[in-house]
Amino acid sequence: MRQCSGEQVVIRGVVIGGEKPLICLPLLAGKKVDLIQQADEIKTLQPDLLEWRADCFEQAEDQEACLDCLRDMRKKVGQIPLIFTLRSHLEGGQSTMSLKDKLALLSEVMVSGDVDIIDVEMCNGTDFIESINRIKEQTQTGLILSYHNFEWTPSEEFILDKLVQAQEMGADIAKVAVMPKNNADVLSLLSATDRARTSGVKIPIVTMSMGAAGAITRLAGGMFGSDITFAMGEASSAPGQLPFADVKRVVDILY
Amino acid sequence: MRQCSGEQVVIRGVVIGGEKPLICLPLLAGKKVDLIQQADEIKTLQPDLLEWRADCFEQAEDQEACLDCLRDMRKKVGQIPLIFTLRSHLEGGQSTMSLKDKLALLSEVMVSGDVDIIDVEMCNGTDFIESINRIKEQTQTGLILSYHNFEWTPSEEFILDKLVQAQEMGADIAKVAVMPKNNADVLSLLSATDRARTSGVKIPIVTMSMGAAGAITRLAGGMFGSDITFAMGEASSAPGQLPFADVKRVVDILY
Repeated sequence: MRQCSGEQVVIRGVVIGGEKPLICLPLLAGKKVDLIQQADEIKTLQPDLLEWRADCFEQAEDQEACLDCLRDMRKKVGQIPLIFTLRSHLEGGQSTMSLKDKLALLSEVMVSGDVDIIDVEMCNGTDFIESINRIKEQTQTGLILSYHNFEWTPSEEFILDKLVQAQEMGADIAKVAVMPKNNADVLSLLSATDRARTSGVKIPIVTMSMGAAGAITRLAGGMFGSDITFAMGEASSAPGQLPFADVKRVVDILY
Repeated sequence: MRQCSGEQVVIRGVVIGGEKPLICLPLLAGKKVDLIQQADEIKTLQPDLLEWRADCFEQAEDQEACLDCLRDMRKKVGQIPLIFTLRSHLEGGQSTMSLKDKLALLSEVMVSGDVDIIDVEMCNGTDFIESINRIKEQTQTGLILSYHNFEWTPSEEFILDKLVQAQEMGADIAKVAVMPKNNADVLSLLSATDRARTSGVKIPIVTMSMGAAGAITRLAGGMFGSDITFAMGEASSAPGQLPFADVKRVVDILY
């Protein structure tokens, strides 16, 4: 049976942590013109959420260009909640920005009101996250604190600790994405997800095993407590993502 | 990644234990006329396998009526492999036949050549299974040895032992179906399935968590090593079975 989160995050009428897990699609391109076209096309699929992987944007280091792109993106996607994510190389992304520049950009993005949620990797450290939390309080932007491991799957306890830690650090949503080496790793991820609910994690969570071996967690993770699954729109933003139509079909069958 | 079995069972060209898990649909009705109509309609769905739950047949105790029904059923289903299953009350079925009468019926059914596989619950005991094995050697019928628990999910070790035991007792296919009380039970079943492959179980296996909570094992069990999933045709033969079209869609997506 599906494990629902104790708390829910409601954004533009969309309930994260409700009875059905939500499907998020990535917006991912180097140039603004392609991003805006992608946003225009992708909204016809009616995804529950969208995530702009801004680190893949060629002008990511140009604050004005980012805010301008965001403004036009928002016009295209209407009321679909938008996640803003800027991953550095260390976090499996493209960005080479300094922590200081990243904080400045995230701050402007949160103030703009055009994004609803930002995703921050926990490896950015407590000082960074505390600064984010201060801006978050003023702007009412949602915060995903995330842990990624593109190499292997840590122990079930470690994954559980990361989810607890994200909540303690002020996240509205906790996210863990790890790479499985075998099926036992996939089961560890699902078990940690299931146990999070009985271990005091009240906020919505997002967990997945990446790669082909973990594909099942993108379809069935919701049964064990994951509240958002990432699928492929025109582009894929992580290994193992399945096409939107397939994920939607399975979500409709299962929940 | 999908765990394939070391050995494969090939029946009428259908490979059990190959790269894709197979979908089996039940034939289940009280009267012959309904069974034959069901067989006629169900074959248009093109299931990989069919299972006649003969304990639901009103004339199950009449050997001639059973064989006659089987003959006409075979004509309808053509080359689709057919499993013959006669579950007693103790095994979650309808049959009240004595062990002696059951053995006599199974023997005739195996000799008839109209069924490809029979399913025998391990609770029927070693003497019964040894007798079945003797007929099996002469008739080349496939044998599923199964364990069912409609009340709860035993430990992972217990489930694994049952799969090992089925192989040791001469099964061509080992089957375990158990009822979960929570998600941890579902994960135990999947983990036992996955571990069977590294614990010397070479034959194809069929495992599932029943009920709504276990639905995910009917879709994704194949990733962990289950080689057959049971879906609903016109009728359902166990709690938690999903519609054929849904299971087929997910199997096509996942494998």
